[in-house]
Amino acid sequence: MNLSMIRFILGSILKIQSFFFLLPIITAIIYKENTLLPYLGIALLCLTIGIITTLKKPKDSVFYLKEGCVATALSWILLSLVGCLPFYLTGEIPKFVDAFFETVSGFTTTGSSILSDVEALSYSNLIWRSFTHWIGGMGVLVFLLAIVPMSGGSNINLMKAESPGPSVGKLVPKIRYTARILYLIYLGMTLAMFLFLLVGRMPVFDALCTTFGTAGTGGFGVKNSSMADYSPYIIWVTGIFMMLFGVNFNAYYLIIFHQVKKAFKMEEIRWYFGLIFASTLLIFINLYRIGMGGFESLTHAFFQVASIITTSGFATTDFNLWHESSKSILILLMFIGACAGSTGGGLKVSRLLILLKTIRKEITSYIHPKSVKKIKMDERPVEHEVVRSANVYFITYIVIFALSLILISFDNKDFTTNFTAVAATFNNIGPGLETVGPTANFSHFSSFSKLVLCFDMLAGRLELFPLLMLFIPELWKDTINPKKKPPHLKTKINSFYKK
Amino acid sequence: MNLSMIRFILGSILKIQSFFFLLPIITAIIYKENTLLPYLGIALLCLTIGIITTLKKPKDSVFYLKEGCVATALSWILLSLVGCLPFYLTGEIPKFVDAFFETVSGFTTTGSSILSDVEALSYSNLIWRSFTHWIGGMGVLVFLLAIVPMSGGSNINLMKAESPGPSVGKLVPKIRYTARILYLIYLGMTLAMFLFLLVGRMPVFDALCTTFGTAGTGGFGVKNSSMADYSPYIIWVTGIFMMLFGVNFNAYYLIIFHQVKKAFKMEEIRWYFGLIFASTLLIFINLYRIGMGGFESLTHAFFQVASIITTSGFATTDFNLWHESSKSILILLMFIGACAGSTGGGLKVSRLLILLKTIRKEITSYIHPKSVKKIKMDERPVEHEVVRSANVYFITYIVIFALSLILISFDNKDFTTNFTAVAATFNNIGPGLETVGPTANFSHFSSFSKLVLCFDMLAGRLELFPLLMLFIPELWKDTINPKKKPPHLKTKINSFYKK
Repeated sequence: MNLSMIRFILGSILKIQSFFFLLPIITAIIYKENTLLPYLGIALLCLTIGIITTLKKPKDSVFYLKEGCVATALSWILLSLVGCLPFYLTGEIPKFVDAFFETVSGFTTTGSSILSDVEALSYSNLIWRSFTHWIGGMGVLVFLLAIVPMSGGSNINLMKAESPGPSVGKLVPKIRYTARILYLIYLGMTLAMFLFLLVGRMPVFDALCTTFGTAGTGGFGVKNSSMADYSPYIIWVTGIFMMLFGVNFNAYYLIIFHQVKKAFKMEEIRWYFGLIFASTLLIFINLYRIGMGGFESLTHAFFQVASIITTSGFATTDFNLWHESSKSILILLMFIGACAGSTGGGLKVSRLLILLKTIRKEITSYIHPKSVKKIKMDERPVEHEVVRSANVYFITYIVIFALSLILISFDNKDFTTNFTAVAATFNNIGPGLETVGPTANFSHFSSFSKLVLCFDMLAGRLELFPLLMLFIPELWKDTINPKKKPPHLKTKINSFYKK
Repeated sequence: MNLSMIRFILGSILKIQSFFFLLPIITAIIYKENTLLPYLGIALLCLTIGIITTLKKPKDSVFYLKEGCVATALSWILLSLVGCLPFYLTGEIPKFVDAFFETVSGFTTTGSSILSDVEALSYSNLIWRSFTHWIGGMGVLVFLLAIVPMSGGSNINLMKAESPGPSVGKLVPKIRYTARILYLIYLGMTLAMFLFLLVGRMPVFDALCTTFGTAGTGGFGVKNSSMADYSPYIIWVTGIFMMLFGVNFNAYYLIIFHQVKKAFKMEEIRWYFGLIFASTLLIFINLYRIGMGGFESLTHAFFQVASIITTSGFATTDFNLWHESSKSILILLMFIGACAGSTGGGLKVSRLLILLKTIRKEITSYIHPKSVKKIKMDERPVEHEVVRSANVYFITYIVIFALSLILISFDNKDFTTNFTAVAATFNNIGPGLETVGPTANFSHFSSFSKLVLCFDMLAGRLELFPLLMLFIPELWKDTINPKKKPPHLKTKINSFYKK
């Protein structure tokens, strides 16, 4: 294990984080808040430790998948540990585990909150809370890749560990260039949305926070009522942008380079919009039938569907009170999630497609046992490895889900609460149903359950394995006694990348 | 498709079923019930149609996997359609869909009921209801194989389609011999349990029905209170026998042939008993802590765990009122289910083991990308095909589960009811929680939802694919226009089995 490289990356993360703190610092200055001092202190501390730990450059900058995963997992834990300090030190979230939960929820773009009164927070804490969504949306390591020069083609191992979806498509040969294009698209769309909201006369502060929450598909709002009190224009703008941030960014890349047709032919994109359309229609009918107005029904149905499938979690209404079929559809969407290569969470539409095609293939194999059709996506055969890994991912996902459900059930909440609490955190959505519904929050869980849910949020955001790896003793044995490493093992790993 | 062979099998099923009706007929004579006439009529009708359709022997008795699956699926549907007639015609279950639901629940050894007052049924209907469990437990086609001579080694395709678990181990080379040994073990254990219950002074009728329900891991009882009013002795006998019927029958085979050590070394067996022990302990602690007596806590905990993991579904208490963690453990056990090659349902312990080992392998592959360890069971490497099919099975299983949940949610019941209703039927258990809990029943669902749940029960019992195949248009195209079948297709299928 290349420990010095991991140290270097963690140090760089701290340096970057100190710059991220500039936003709440500026906010504190503007609003003359006494949160300024804590923020300044933490930022300086970050910067100092960051500079010290990155003084010595690592000798060996080559990076294997294993190190990529460990560095990613540790970076996100570090980000959250440092990121929660302002909430805790300003006293606005008095319990440390709550502050940690809120921050993990922010960085993982979940949006589950332990706050019952969001509006009681200071502006600087509010904007920091929403800003974590924006940072987490694209991934902080991708950001690192975009700005810090790193050697070798093994950077892909960092990106692979952090990017959502079944496989990282290298858009262009150079990974740093890819990272920059992704961030440019992200920045451009963020700016566009911000302007659209300003046009709708949303206050600048609200617009900024809402944009951060939407771009990262996070869902933290600045009002206790989430989005319910805003104008239909603002609700529609937010809804449409949530939907757009849930699209596979490869599609935007194609559109930018004038391959619009190809973008719209992507199966994942078609299914994504198809799912949004069908779910909106069904929920619209359910709402309309109980006597809600046509436009209002459509607004709520579309907004909530977009909010859940993109795993944002904003709410315009208490959908906990909806018809059970509407709620079940939302729960299903929670698991499906947005497109791969977007800022959204969940299983991802493309992974779902692979799973469904696997099933279809299995049934067909009963009818024609000897046929050896390959699974296809976008009219091209899918590599066996991608199919296999999507399958294993799903299995792992369900097993973690089940175990989390058991662990938090010791708090003796009702089953719907537990089930949707895990679903909402693991898929990085935000609100669930019943006592974790859109008008409620997660504060009533025990500290143990909160930590379980923190694990789920991180596991969901980092696509399980980077986080799970930390719990495998084998990984650490190798690290603690590098000299004791059997020689054949070393050769094996090296030869894997040398070929 | 070998349609004449399928006709022949369905005809044979009808003939066998007419003999099965002898039990309720005798019961009706003993208790002088006016259900005698309907039962006699249906039995004679079955026999007549059965004889007519099996007069002409099929020219070609060779059987492919496809035909094995279709024959199995259709047999079970036919069994249920005919089997529900007595309930319907005697007027004791006035709605046809309810009678069908009850019978599917019987044959699939589920034990979910639409009856609020079981004790109102006549003795003949009660015993028929319990007897369907016993028939369904071992599988009626295995029974067919055990008594009807059939040609060729392709009988395995019938057995494969009906037997629960990831793979059919041929215990002995000749499949008919295997089927007979299995039935002998089944019969022997049934008899033993019956005698044990009689020793405990259980009324003969109750003992017979309870034994049927236990042997098939079904769960239909003859009392409205299920098992709650019986003596601790009877409860423990039933609990222990449930547990024994959930064991992989291969273990008994080994024990009979003096390979006791080998039987106890089976990983699946160890995990199975380990799960029962751990779950019982946890629930025992939960019950003991709220002040229940030690022995009583242990009795309830063990009985309920054995009842749920074996997918029987008997109840000694309303576990819907238990601590949420106890309930969550039970829900988890619902999905795990019993051992492969037992009469129980669910995913099966061995399949779970394969899934867990797949996950473990995946994580390790992140640490040592080049290692190519094979997954092992009982110290022998597992075939890639078995692993792959266990994975696909699990994915299909979850997808069907999710779709069923959506479909029945249109009835607007609460989420816990819907979730556990699907879990309880799909895993062939019986009771769920909330409004389908142990003291409630399934009658309040709409006819549509009942049919969805019937599908789930059949799909769960037949391990998904035989039933799913019926919905693939490709299968029927081939059948309706056999002359239009492209020649290459025919060759393909034939050559598969000829090699």
